[in-house]
Amino acid sequence: MDLSKSSREIDLHDIQITDSFWNGKMELIRKTVIPYQWDILNDKVPEAVPSYCMHNFKVAGRMNKEKRDKGDAYVAPTYTFRGFESLPKDPKNPKDDEFYGFVFQDSDFSKWIEAVGYSLINHPDPELEKVADEAIDIVCDAQLDNGYLDTYYIINGMDKAFTNLRDHHELYCFGHLTEGAVSYYKATGKRKLLDAACRFADYIDSYFGPEEGKCKGYPGHEIAEMALVRLYEVTGNKKYLDLSAFFLDERGRKPYYYDKEFNIENRKEGELDYYYLQAHLPVREQSQATGHAVRAVYLYSGMADMARLSGDDSMYEACLRLWNSITNEQMYITGGIGSTVLGEAFSYPFDLPNDSAYAETCASIGLIFFAIRMLQIKPDSKYADVMELALYNTVLSGMSADGKSFFYVNPLEANPKASLLDERKRHVKTTRQKWFGCACCPPNLARLISSLGRYAYTVSDDTLFVHLYIGGVISTTISGSDVEVTVTSDVPNSGNVGLSLKCDHEFEGTLALRIPGWAGGSYRDPVIDGMNTRREDGYLYITGKFRNGYSIKLDFRMEPRVIEADSRVREDEGKVALLRGPVVYCLEEVDNGKDLHLLRMRVEKGFEEVHSMLNGMQTVILKCYGKRRIPFDGSMNDTSKSGLYHTYTKPQYKDVTLKFIPYFEWANRGEGEMSVYIAPAT
Amino acid sequence: MDLSKSSREIDLHDIQITDSFWNGKMELIRKTVIPYQWDILNDKVPEAVPSYCMHNFKVAGRMNKEKRDKGDAYVAPTYTFRGFESLPKDPKNPKDDEFYGFVFQDSDFSKWIEAVGYSLINHPDPELEKVADEAIDIVCDAQLDNGYLDTYYIINGMDKAFTNLRDHHELYCFGHLTEGAVSYYKATGKRKLLDAACRFADYIDSYFGPEEGKCKGYPGHEIAEMALVRLYEVTGNKKYLDLSAFFLDERGRKPYYYDKEFNIENRKEGELDYYYLQAHLPVREQSQATGHAVRAVYLYSGMADMARLSGDDSMYEACLRLWNSITNEQMYITGGIGSTVLGEAFSYPFDLPNDSAYAETCASIGLIFFAIRMLQIKPDSKYADVMELALYNTVLSGMSADGKSFFYVNPLEANPKASLLDERKRHVKTTRQKWFGCACCPPNLARLISSLGRYAYTVSDDTLFVHLYIGGVISTTISGSDVEVTVTSDVPNSGNVGLSLKCDHEFEGTLALRIPGWAGGSYRDPVIDGMNTRREDGYLYITGKFRNGYSIKLDFRMEPRVIEADSRVREDEGKVALLRGPVVYCLEEVDNGKDLHLLRMRVEKGFEEVHSMLNGMQTVILKCYGKRRIPFDGSMNDTSKSGLYHTYTKPQYKDVTLKFIPYFEWANRGEGEMSVYIAPAT
Repeated sequence: MDLSKSSREIDLHDIQITDSFWNGKMELIRKTVIPYQWDILNDKVPEAVPSYCMHNFKVAGRMNKEKRDKGDAYVAPTYTFRGFESLPKDPKNPKDDEFYGFVFQDSDFSKWIEAVGYSLINHPDPELEKVADEAIDIVCDAQLDNGYLDTYYIINGMDKAFTNLRDHHELYCFGHLTEGAVSYYKATGKRKLLDAACRFADYIDSYFGPEEGKCKGYPGHEIAEMALVRLYEVTGNKKYLDLSAFFLDERGRKPYYYDKEFNIENRKEGELDYYYLQAHLPVREQSQATGHAVRAVYLYSGMADMARLSGDDSMYEACLRLWNSITNEQMYITGGIGSTVLGEAFSYPFDLPNDSAYAETCASIGLIFFAIRMLQIKPDSKYADVMELALYNTVLSGMSADGKSFFYVNPLEANPKASLLDERKRHVKTTRQKWFGCACCPPNLARLISSLGRYAYTVSDDTLFVHLYIGGVISTTISGSDVEVTVTSDVPNSGNVGLSLKCDHEFEGTLALRIPGWAGGSYRDPVIDGMNTRREDGYLYITGKFRNGYSIKLDFRMEPRVIEADSRVREDEGKVALLRGPVVYCLEEVDNGKDLHLLRMRVEKGFEEVHSMLNGMQTVILKCYGKRRIPFDGSMNDTSKSGLYHTYTKPQYKDVTLKFIPYFEWANRGEGEMSVYIAPAT
Repeated sequence: MDLSKSSREIDLHDIQITDSFWNGKMELIRKTVIPYQWDILNDKVPEAVPSYCMHNFKVAGRMNKEKRDKGDAYVAPTYTFRGFESLPKDPKNPKDDEFYGFVFQDSDFSKWIEAVGYSLINHPDPELEKVADEAIDIVCDAQLDNGYLDTYYIINGMDKAFTNLRDHHELYCFGHLTEGAVSYYKATGKRKLLDAACRFADYIDSYFGPEEGKCKGYPGHEIAEMALVRLYEVTGNKKYLDLSAFFLDERGRKPYYYDKEFNIENRKEGELDYYYLQAHLPVREQSQATGHAVRAVYLYSGMADMARLSGDDSMYEACLRLWNSITNEQMYITGGIGSTVLGEAFSYPFDLPNDSAYAETCASIGLIFFAIRMLQIKPDSKYADVMELALYNTVLSGMSADGKSFFYVNPLEANPKASLLDERKRHVKTTRQKWFGCACCPPNLARLISSLGRYAYTVSDDTLFVHLYIGGVISTTISGSDVEVTVTSDVPNSGNVGLSLKCDHEFEGTLALRIPGWAGGSYRDPVIDGMNTRREDGYLYITGKFRNGYSIKLDFRMEPRVIEADSRVREDEGKVALLRGPVVYCLEEVDNGKDLHLLRMRVEKGFEEVHSMLNGMQTVILKCYGKRRIPFDGSMNDTSKSGLYHTYTKPQYKDVTLKFIPYFEWANRGEGEMSVYIAPAT
């Protein structure tokens, strides 16, 4: 496969995000989310469900000490399954020798330490680092001498470790631990947690592998695949890359590992759960994104990593097919994926209900992971467009304006009454929640937003790529020359962006700037004196000699766009959505009254852009002419004696002004109806 | 309360249904459903789930015999819960001392014998009667000496009888047994089963009641309330009426009986399950139809019976409120009720999704039970309109044209792909099923359709009421004179109906003929020489002197009507449905192609009525001008790089002819999409 256009991450130390929009979000993470999360990990937030995460590490650490102290006299616990989530009988007095929380509770620490690492890079903070170091000591104390580090089994009984890979998420915990360890090592240079992750990886490598006698299992919840790649990249130890490849290669191989794990005989080929686990086929043969949406995109991210590092065509082609399966058939206009609450999963192509959507925050974060890896292999603005869509909509919607409450589920239509009264929509919350017992989304948001630079820019030997217009200062090397690139951006409020360079010497190189899909077909590339410009796959490549002080300004037209979905999406038939730049807009009850379904948009009349403050943010509000259907007020007529139905008459409307706000700002001003889609007036 | 306009059932012996449309259905029941059902009860249909119904009665009978034979030496089984549905480990060899099937499996026999009774009245059949007598012998052998007759507890252990009224349905089985016994007694004059039902009722009366020391429970699944009224009416024994009143009065009383039954402490007031059980409030205080839809309408039927017999205003007012709650807020245009599969229940007002509807056949049958009882109290065509709507749509849809397969669930929109791939719609079958393990709908259809005369006509001392235009010959007494009334009807094909009288003597009396809601506001009452005509509550009252040979013909205009739902029904916004007379129409894929959501109806162009044969029935097919949306075929444009979304452009359509068939005939010509609602072209 052709890797001539590939690019690589820039070390986060070399990126300083200066973007006014995103800096605010990063500061929320740093000042609000990370400290709050630390309290959560330590069960110090009275109104939140206790995490028991640090409790578990401490219990495991004590048991290790006891084991070492007692030596041969130590009696290890014999494993008994206590449920996927176990809680103390008396919540106020958790026992100091029991594991509590979800089986994968360890990962809460790992996500936190990962975010802490990024945050320390962006904003050194000795106090936070001290807290983190102490936490790492506690975690490392829990590690067994052989390297194993999952407190669920350490506490409950190691005799059953690695026997329920499908559901018990040890390899998932390992993956997160590794991502966290790499982040913290990169931030601080401190190796303690990284070494622990390596020892755990070494132990896993000794247990799993292609060699005879080794276990042929693979993660039930993927992430280890991409985490091992990261460990390989930071350590240079190829065995980690090989282990990742092993997990990828085993997936979907027959006879199915999980059949053996559960001693299930006579399983029919292609049973649903294998689709659910993305293990219905060997990964290179997969074409349709299926199953648990977060797991799916984590897997595809690992596959993309592997394609890039191995140059494996068939792996890359599978990634391309899976990307298309998601974005051409199974993605909401908000970049949300996973349309059904049942299993938090992909449903089937073109099944994208708005009012019962799942569209988990984490799934869109995973889609961003997948997108940046595809971009690294070969830049194409289609990946960056989707990445930006997911980022500015489903991901941002996941966090309240004050950073204190979170959505797991991001519907495109919400009605508090339905969420309250209809069990089928109970997962659709209309108020963000403080924290979750299964706390994946808030810490995932924290680690993504604290490392945004990774997604905005990449470099190759001679080219700097700008994928997302997020203001920042990047110190990098282009064609051997050290360069400081300053990106300015008014996105999402306008499409005004700019780049300027500082360098000691003139150098020859390329700047590759994404032309956003939303800039429209009318966008014309600028003519730049003395430079060679060309457009390829949605990127503007500016090649030539760059001197200190070189600058360029681009104005991507950011106009309201009315879009509609493919007509195979039944739920969107006869409806449109409104976007401006990467931002999806929505109607809220607080601005437009109840019964949003009675509203129509007069598309042909255009839009008024109102720049104002909303929820503490500079926001572009869109107003337009609309109509509100006047409910039939005829007294019951003779057609039917049920008051519910009446003879159809041409609907009557009254003129109204519709007010749309960015989708990511919904549910910040009290509870009410919300809708992304609206029928055009005719 | 004013009962001056009340009327009563006519003995089915005095009604002969001659209607060409309904006779065909009744013959299907007689020739196909009843014999098939008998085989089902005896586990003689290899491709169907075994019922074990007669098996259980035989086991219980043998145990009774053993008990009598052994006397003091007999050791009764000690109850162990074996599940709500228990099946033999080896399906081919059910053990001859175990209970199988659902806990309420006995009721299958009772529904069958009820239908048999009606059928024997309509069509005497000594062979069928012999089979029935033998079945009754088996059933009666199972009865304990004290009168108790529920094989689940007789076989599994009587020590726990009546300890799980909420879920184990003994009182439900009793109710069905009673309804079946009354039917068979009325058909044949044979008292054996009726006496068994009385003995069971007597035992229940000795166990439950207001007296100190007696159990204060009430049925989890209602039906005993109305069954006891029937038993009272046939026996004249007032204690059965009192027992029914007791069950009604206890319902919703605090402290909740089921709390005590399950020893549940600290239950919060108004918890959902009490709504589910229609026990959230005393019945006289209830206003919203809630919970399991079948149970709800069975309860309301019992309440209406009680209101009529007791003259209790507060009970009647509750019935009126509950009727309005159903028909003004929670009923599909097809007369379907219970919009959510979760608990087969009412959801909340105006929540009527078309594609995930439950709308159980049995629930609409129960709505008919409720309607006729309200009509008996005080005639008002609003009840008859809904009764007719339920009958010609959801009820009829429940059975295939050949009477051999059945729908439990009657959606208003179906898509085989969604039913296959989307767990949330798996209950929506797109092909009728042979029979069900939980076989409530087919036998319920059988008993309703075999006793249609009960719903079509009632009498008071001086008035014959025609509620439904179903052709038949009624022998009754009006103002003391014996009269034979012949009703002719072309419904549902046209609104031509007629009445003629045979009598020995001229008599003074009233014919009360319902003016169907669908006949429209333009319907003008005929001027009839020498008669006094007046219209009241949707009935045309013709009062005067009637002579032998008197006849009247009415032509209710039956024209296609386009209706729309109340604008609070979000799922129907911007859509209309088509009816003609009481018949709801639908689009099927076989006539209109795939992707029915792309069709639009040109409402203003009118309809062509095509009279033709369809599925062996004379049918009026409706054709009209329509449009089919041409899917956007632009290549991916720049708006978004996802292939799923594109810039909105005014939709393009091509002209098509739409073909609508009666909803009750859907899914008789292979599997495909179906839709009742369609957007009007604009």
